[in-house]
Amino acid sequence: MNKLYVVGLGPGGAEGMTAAARAALDRADLLCGYTRYLDLVRPLYPDKAWYATPMTGELDRCRYALEAARGGKTVAMVCGGDPGVYGMAGPLLELAGPDARDVEVVPGVTAALSGGAVLGAPLMHDFCLISLSDRLTPWERIEGRLRAAAMGDFVICLYNPASHGRPGHLRRACGVLLEAGLAPGTPCGWVRNIGRPGEEARVLTLAELRDEPVDMFTTVFIGNSQTEIREGRLVTPRGYREET
Amino acid sequence: MNKLYVVGLGPGGAEGMTAAARAALDRADLLCGYTRYLDLVRPLYPDKAWYATPMTGELDRCRYALEAARGGKTVAMVCGGDPGVYGMAGPLLELAGPDARDVEVVPGVTAALSGGAVLGAPLMHDFCLISLSDRLTPWERIEGRLRAAAMGDFVICLYNPASHGRPGHLRRACGVLLEAGLAPGTPCGWVRNIGRPGEEARVLTLAELRDEPVDMFTTVFIGNSQTEIREGRLVTPRGYREET
Repeated sequence: MNKLYVVGLGPGGAEGMTAAARAALDRADLLCGYTRYLDLVRPLYPDKAWYATPMTGELDRCRYALEAARGGKTVAMVCGGDPGVYGMAGPLLELAGPDARDVEVVPGVTAALSGGAVLGAPLMHDFCLISLSDRLTPWERIEGRLRAAAMGDFVICLYNPASHGRPGHLRRACGVLLEAGLAPGTPCGWVRNIGRPGEEARVLTLAELRDEPVDMFTTVFIGNSQTEIREGRLVTPRGYREET
Repeated sequence: MNKLYVVGLGPGGAEGMTAAARAALDRADLLCGYTRYLDLVRPLYPDKAWYATPMTGELDRCRYALEAARGGKTVAMVCGGDPGVYGMAGPLLELAGPDARDVEVVPGVTAALSGGAVLGAPLMHDFCLISLSDRLTPWERIEGRLRAAAMGDFVICLYNPASHGRPGHLRRACGVLLEAGLAPGTPCGWVRNIGRPGEEARVLTLAELRDEPVDMFTTVFIGNSQTEIREGRLVTPRGYREET
């Protein structure tokens, strides 16, 4: 099989991509991906062949990319953020079989990092990422993870807080965390369209977050017991102040 | 105050940096950082002024960078990986006061992502990052987080699994996870010197990991109950197989 790169684009435009990601796209004969992400890179490579599928077409997209690489093409499967975080690296490695040796994962800046940078420094101490999408995970398991995260006093970053088919997930998640003992005043934040036109962000409390309308292009941050709002930004301390 | 960029270098060389990180370094008059990370970028900018401190000199480094920016210099504080994950973004924002508005966090690829890409796709489902360093966090709190992570069946990525002053931390952490019910055969892995000369990686079980010698340049991955070893790589499924 020829090389199949699974490439993380980071938050959006060319400036969020690593040099290694850019080099992989340069080398590819064929670009594959979810339409939304492919549209971010097609202007950079107007003459390359491409294959786009809607969001739910993951397996179709993976099989097409694998067949193209087996047929001799150098292929890049593009993913928003990092391909290893709720991205295409896993399904591709599962489907590739022994050809997995020719699959190279090129990491990128996932929304927890790019969104955290917009809000300040919410992830300065131990944190966890939880997706609120129940398309592939039972909601009970998601609630269990939220409770465990609360028990461990982790900073929490939520992916997929909402979608057309899943209204009210963020409200339910905030409810679980409040029941688990998080203070209603816990500093939180969200960022929408990170690194893209129309980027927006807000810092607010957990009680306010529960009633906040969010969409699928939003990443949500919930502080730990130490997180503070400083000059309008979220900062989780590591304890450096005691060090002097 | 002039602009102070807090820049994530990603795993190591120039190819792991985003275009935005590179642009921030281009604009800076002065580069600050821990000696080890500064050495990674100084060859790219041989003519720029720089200020290096050892690893434990974080606050000194932050104050120096802030004073230089207040004095009219454009400053870049460089961090390995991402500046918002156990990096300098937090301490700088804490010390900056109202000048925080001129501090811009430029995210980078943290070791969980770059190391995960080397091992396959271990972080494809909900995961947490835990640092085993007890320099600024009591060990009891670290153990509590490990137990919570086990309870939530999170994939776990461990930073700072060892150092000269902290022998045996990884062994103790594995012990806590085994006591908390993780199977001894849980697929795990580690990566050392990610993206740098001498990169090494190994896939192994949790029981084997407990006895593994690791150093401070190593990042450790512990699978969840679903993680598998496929063609020598770690893959955590999201359940896409059921989707066809």
